[in-house]
Amino acid sequence: MQVPIITFLSDYGLVDDFVGVCHAVIAGICPQARVIDLTHGIPRHGVRAGAVVLQATLPYLPVGVHLAVVDPGVGGERRALALRLADDRMLVGPDNGLLSLAASEGRGVLEAVDIGHSRFALKPVSASFHGRDIFAPVAARLASGAALADAGEACDPAGLVVLELPVARVVDGFLVAHVLYVDRFGNVALNVGRDELGGCGSAGDRIELVPGSGEPHQARIVSTFADVGPGELLVYEDSYRRLAVAVNGGDAAARLGLGADDELRIRLT
Amino acid sequence: MQVPIITFLSDYGLVDDFVGVCHAVIAGICPQARVIDLTHGIPRHGVRAGAVVLQATLPYLPVGVHLAVVDPGVGGERRALALRLADDRMLVGPDNGLLSLAASEGRGVLEAVDIGHSRFALKPVSASFHGRDIFAPVAARLASGAALADAGEACDPAGLVVLELPVARVVDGFLVAHVLYVDRFGNVALNVGRDELGGCGSAGDRIELVPGSGEPHQARIVSTFADVGPGELLVYEDSYRRLAVAVNGGDAAARLGLGADDELRIRLT
Amino acid sequence: MQVPIITFLSDYGLVDDFVGVCHAVIAGICPQARVIDLTHGIPRHGVRAGAVVLQATLPYLPVGVHLAVVDPGVGGERRALALRLADDRMLVGPDNGLLSLAASEGRGVLEAVDIGHSRFALKPVSASFHGRDIFAPVAARLASGAALADAGEACDPAGLVVLELPVARVVDGFLVAHVLYVDRFGNVALNVGRDELGGCGSAGDRIELVPGSGEPHQARIVSTFADVGPGELLVYEDSYRRLAVAVNGGDAAARLGLGADDELRIRLT
Repeated sequence: MQVPIITFLSDYGLVDDFVGVCHAVIAGICPQARVIDLTHGIPRHGVRAGAVVLQATLPYLPVGVHLAVVDPGVGGERRALALRLADDRMLVGPDNGLLSLAASEGRGVLEAVDIGHSRFALKPVSASFHGRDIFAPVAARLASGAALADAGEACDPAGLVVLELPVARVVDGFLVAHVLYVDRFGNVALNVGRDELGGCGSAGDRIELVPGSGEPHQARIVSTFADVGPGELLVYEDSYRRLAVAVNGGDAAARLGLGADDELRIRLT
Repeated sequence: MQVPIITFLSDYGLVDDFVGVCHAVIAGICPQARVIDLTHGIPRHGVRAGAVVLQATLPYLPVGVHLAVVDPGVGGERRALALRLADDRMLVGPDNGLLSLAASEGRGVLEAVDIGHSRFALKPVSASFHGRDIFAPVAARLASGAALADAGEACDPAGLVVLELPVARVVDGFLVAHVLYVDRFGNVALNVGRDELGGCGSAGDRIELVPGSGEPHQARIVSTFADVGPGELLVYEDSYRRLAVAVNGGDAAARLGLGADDELRIRLT
Repeated sequence: MQVPIITFLSDYGLVDDFVGVCHAVIAGICPQARVIDLTHGIPRHGVRAGAVVLQATLPYLPVGVHLAVVDPGVGGERRALALRLADDRMLVGPDNGLLSLAASEGRGVLEAVDIGHSRFALKPVSASFHGRDIFAPVAARLASGAALADAGEACDPAGLVVLELPVARVVDGFLVAHVLYVDRFGNVALNVGRDELGGCGSAGDRIELVPGSGEPHQARIVSTFADVGPGELLVYEDSYRRLAVAVNGGDAAARLGLGADDELRIRLT
């Protein structure tokens, strides 16, 4: 028998019982599922960070049910969703854009249901913890083999909230990029993919980085951290094939004063 | 075959190897068990916080062995316990009150054994890490089907340490409540249950909150965060059906200067 | 059928998706494996702390594949390794000394392979995330029963990088010890084992501790925290049978100003 897989991403953190209780609810419904905590360290209410991480990691996740909860609008008007993608994955989470990048990565949504009043939900449904009461039990039932259509009311995939990411552009000889994600080491991933790297030079080139503060920093394009000296800035293709900025053994986000969504101007020198 | 469930709560944190080694010990004894980390973020030595979380979450946990370790008296005189509850759950942990609220939630203790010298313990038993040497192996043996009576010496359930929580009371027209728990978002749960909410008004009412500092704050009673504007205070029934205070998108504990056990006076305005 | 065990230690932390993605990769290759997170809280690039924790905990881990990633040299010249020990354990990780103490604990290396170009690796191999692309998939294949020889190129166990720990010595009537590890409670483990404790006195003795700052602190040798009053310093044998310094209910590392690798002079008084 194949082991059903549920991956779980949230902004719940690991200090409280939120994640543990969702695991307990899943284990009560689908004890045979293997639940993989993708991360619960998404910044609070960081819908975009959650969407970016889910999209980037999706190709590394076994096909299964992908539960994602970053839900500042819990209990309000936003819809709760379960989706089936063209690549056979299922996504479960709030309709606030969190699922939208992963849905594209999975070749689009074939079927969508609104699970706001799902018969799979725990009753009574609380107003503030839909992770426990709606999303986790629906994910567990889907992992158990329940039909998506039984999880809620069918709705039009075309009507789902889609997250718009900023697009890098060239202005005055600079590539104007944006910070997609900063990891705990201070490595800064930019919204510049492999295909757009051309204008950013190739290995060995020197490159100038100008954050919003206006102070220019010099870096080198290399393959990995060890290619520059300790404490030196580098620009590299990160493990999700995005242009990224790091400091060997240091914290590039702190050095450049960059956080999620900030603009960074780049040019060859 | 049914999968045995062990839930695990502690103040060990996730920085060191404490939790991982307990998992390893369990896996060595009962590899088929599914271990659910309820939380390891209980504040250091926070026996009361641990007891409150275990009680609140118990109804969401599959019936199994519930391992809980918040143990400031490790190696000292306090007893180590394994309990069977009337609802068929088993609890394992120190006899310092940590298990007592959950024991009530599970309809009381039917059978108690002192596992301080359990033959299921790892030998030699260290003086400072009974989680690894006593509690985890006993929990794993119970999950494997060992009889509770074989885990240690029978003792009288009436003699167990019981945690006394403060009780909300009415003084000078105020409901004087206490903070039971503050989560990582700064949401503040009070020792006021559904049944006592009557005097606290109903949805839409305005309410005054007076923390120890004496400065009054105005809030509204609503269902959930999204019912007030960003940055506004709300009073709501939280997901464990306790009266709670929050700030939409903010940190109520910080705004009101509240921590665990602090007093909060409340009245309708 | 026996459940294959993979233990996993790293400095990845739990804020980002690093650990979750490695779990996902393992689940895709060996869904039947039980993966135990030993800890991911090793300080960034803390090769020595990782090596010390892996060695100390090894006797408590079921025999299996022990994956360890603390890898400041990722993408550079350092080798990637999979090892078979005399006690039947397998170790997987970078060749920077991280595995060397555990290898001794497991009675030495019988077989070593360089997995830098393993056919079990995910392709393409990124330059900065060998945990995901090399170490996790190799560990998963070994847990699935693949032969070690198939994981890479055989290499000479005698050529592996070995970590040298400082050795405690007696100077001017003091035992000069070093800090091996500080846990999140501020308990300080020293490089003094059971056999060397003789010169450090026995239970009840008074002892003087002189950190690098030169200010002497008085402590008592006891069995456990509860043997001294709240806030008092104690010296005890910790749960891994090392001499250790703690404060009952407090933080000894902070009080003595000690961090990993610092020197501490000790004498009976």
